[in-house]
Amino acid sequence: MGQTRWVSAAADRAAQLDAADPLAHLRERYHLPDGVVYLDGNSLGAMPVTAPGRLHRTVTHEWGERLIRSWNEAGWFTAATRAAAALAPLLGADPDEVVVADSTSVNVAKLLHVALALRPGRQVVVMERGSFPTDLYVAQGVLAMTGGELRLVADPAELPDALDDDVAVLAVTEVDFRTGLRWDVGAVTGAAHRVGALAMVDLCHSTGALDVDVHRWEVDLAVGCGYKFLHGGPGAPAHCYVARRHHDALPAPLPAWFGHAEPFAMSEQFTPAPGVARLAGGTPPVLSLQGLLCGLESLRGVTAAQLNAKATALGTYFAELLAEHCPQLTVLTPPEPARRGAQISVRHPRAYALVQALIARDVIGDFRHPDIARFGLAPATTRFADVALAVAQLSAVLDAGEDAAGLIPAPTSVT
Amino acid sequence: MGQTRWVSAAADRAAQLDAADPLAHLRERYHLPDGVVYLDGNSLGAMPVTAPGRLHRTVTHEWGERLIRSWNEAGWFTAATRAAAALAPLLGADPDEVVVADSTSVNVAKLLHVALALRPGRQVVVMERGSFPTDLYVAQGVLAMTGGELRLVADPAELPDALDDDVAVLAVTEVDFRTGLRWDVGAVTGAAHRVGALAMVDLCHSTGALDVDVHRWEVDLAVGCGYKFLHGGPGAPAHCYVARRHHDALPAPLPAWFGHAEPFAMSEQFTPAPGVARLAGGTPPVLSLQGLLCGLESLRGVTAAQLNAKATALGTYFAELLAEHCPQLTVLTPPEPARRGAQISVRHPRAYALVQALIARDVIGDFRHPDIARFGLAPATTRFADVALAVAQLSAVLDAGEDAAGLIPAPTSVT
Repeated sequence: MGQTRWVSAAADRAAQLDAADPLAHLRERYHLPDGVVYLDGNSLGAMPVTAPGRLHRTVTHEWGERLIRSWNEAGWFTAATRAAAALAPLLGADPDEVVVADSTSVNVAKLLHVALALRPGRQVVVMERGSFPTDLYVAQGVLAMTGGELRLVADPAELPDALDDDVAVLAVTEVDFRTGLRWDVGAVTGAAHRVGALAMVDLCHSTGALDVDVHRWEVDLAVGCGYKFLHGGPGAPAHCYVARRHHDALPAPLPAWFGHAEPFAMSEQFTPAPGVARLAGGTPPVLSLQGLLCGLESLRGVTAAQLNAKATALGTYFAELLAEHCPQLTVLTPPEPARRGAQISVRHPRAYALVQALIARDVIGDFRHPDIARFGLAPATTRFADVALAVAQLSAVLDAGEDAAGLIPAPTSVT
Repeated sequence: MGQTRWVSAAADRAAQLDAADPLAHLRERYHLPDGVVYLDGNSLGAMPVTAPGRLHRTVTHEWGERLIRSWNEAGWFTAATRAAAALAPLLGADPDEVVVADSTSVNVAKLLHVALALRPGRQVVVMERGSFPTDLYVAQGVLAMTGGELRLVADPAELPDALDDDVAVLAVTEVDFRTGLRWDVGAVTGAAHRVGALAMVDLCHSTGALDVDVHRWEVDLAVGCGYKFLHGGPGAPAHCYVARRHHDALPAPLPAWFGHAEPFAMSEQFTPAPGVARLAGGTPPVLSLQGLLCGLESLRGVTAAQLNAKATALGTYFAELLAEHCPQLTVLTPPEPARRGAQISVRHPRAYALVQALIARDVIGDFRHPDIARFGLAPATTRFADVALAVAQLSAVLDAGEDAAGLIPAPTSVT
């Protein structure tokens, strides 16, 4: 059979690429289920092998046996700060410019309030229409409170018309969760700064996979997610970045005791902790925070540039195989590596059935409404062999007509 | 020795009380360290024996093996709703009036915004000066945003002067975290309603220990904590209550995708989920939420009235022993059971040294700035025998002068 031949050749080529991959050793740091090709690490990253032991110790020893003493003894108090320090290099930030806390949504709210406070007199927030929806909802909520205006743009070409002296902040998502399009954050930041606005970036689909570099980009504010490419576990705490140049004037839009300079003075007045630490909020969810620490430790010794190079190579290989063996699929993700996140998305009129047929064949991607099949390429856990297997199964599903079950718009996963 | 005699008699009496305690069987549902008298369950509740197994399964099987599929398969999507349903009876609420999400601080912010929106034209929030500080900080933050005013009262006697037609909401903490004083929430609610204001209550030191009854009190809004008397683990998610009569007009001050009517439609506009569910926020911290579910299951089949009766009996017994055997200590907690939370607090000029000396004797209470030693009486895990042992050690510490190390105002624990 023709398919057998190319699949076998692709497997050989993939094996060569894996053998030459400088990050191939990382995969041993994670558990992946036997026989499964997991291409949904952009929704939930694979589990670090250290996580079961860490959580077991936290639950049985620290909580069960040592109880309240563990806030000091086991470092629960410093866990979020340690997570921020481990994360900072992957953002191109200094440790004291990063805070780990809350969900991404809560952090987007905090940072939009920060932006509006840092640009008094300006009431407009500019965002992209294709942002992850919760970012849009949060912005609607913040602006309903402040009486401001939300301006939506469809793509970078519309920015010049949207940016003017009324704009407090331009907030973009670096990687479009549907298409995988990667924005040029440095260029966007420059455009915002030229009209005196701040630039904010959502790194949910970036941190841990791409060569994020907030200093080089000169971006002012950033948020990101702990449970995708950072392998922090379901609903792991999110993070914020605030550039040091804003620390002196930084407001605390959600002042709470973990962001107080002296939480245990129990004083009536909020005295903000230095710098970005004032954004820490309430008591952190310690069990989920331990998961995040395991995820960050699993990326120890790896640079954002290395992760980006691997993600790029995986994406290029994926796109090549698709072009050759699944020509009937429309690839939505841009072919240029610099314009592409760590995913490949295809459009298909029966995308949901396609994704379900692949899952039945142990290839896990996900469906995005209404007609997108999305394949995440988490650089720490994805092998070139996984890509070759995925395209072989995709081709087989299409050849066998297993995608003919029609459009069933049912939810399957989280972002 | 005199002390030996009373200690022995107290132990006998405590054994009788424990034998007659209808909730004595609950203690088997928790792990408590050998030889330790744990009186800090109002800071961090003891671990349910189901927690290690539940977390192990969530980490290794649900996250590690089933990955993204667990959002549906393992019920991660419904975990917060199931927690709210388990919690509602302990609040005297209906399940759809409760939402589990975020930290207490974030929930206080949401509900203060809700209150200000439900009472348009009113800009004042009235709170008690002795509130847990983070509530005050959050209120300062919210009012800085809305341009409103925070009025502080020292005690219920000052309420008549503080309440007028400008007040949007009166927010009290049912149990003072320092003294253990319990406010009459029903009376406070009546006072708020008489001037057309809403009433909000912080139940952090109440839920799971006292006969909370939001319906009977006619309170409008409430927040509470998952990691104290609910045994949900360190930093477990908090909860909000909104009375049904406000659901139709309920704003979503932090609109985010888990509070959307159709999260996976991924639409641009926020369409709020019905009722209180719109306050759900972003992706929940699943590992910490599993801890909370274990905590709530550990209280299954127990009523708030039963927990309250046990807490009252423990407090009465504690106060009696203190009066008899430690007369040199000033008890801050009111003697009347109806005015007392599930704790006993004493004032002592060297309270920190006192607490440290007790910890060295395996009696764990906590210190609160500047001169308070606090003993929590979590009704599900505290035996009368624990109270007798604690007072025996307290008396021994005082007799031996082990509290003479001076005032060391160092933090030891969390709320």
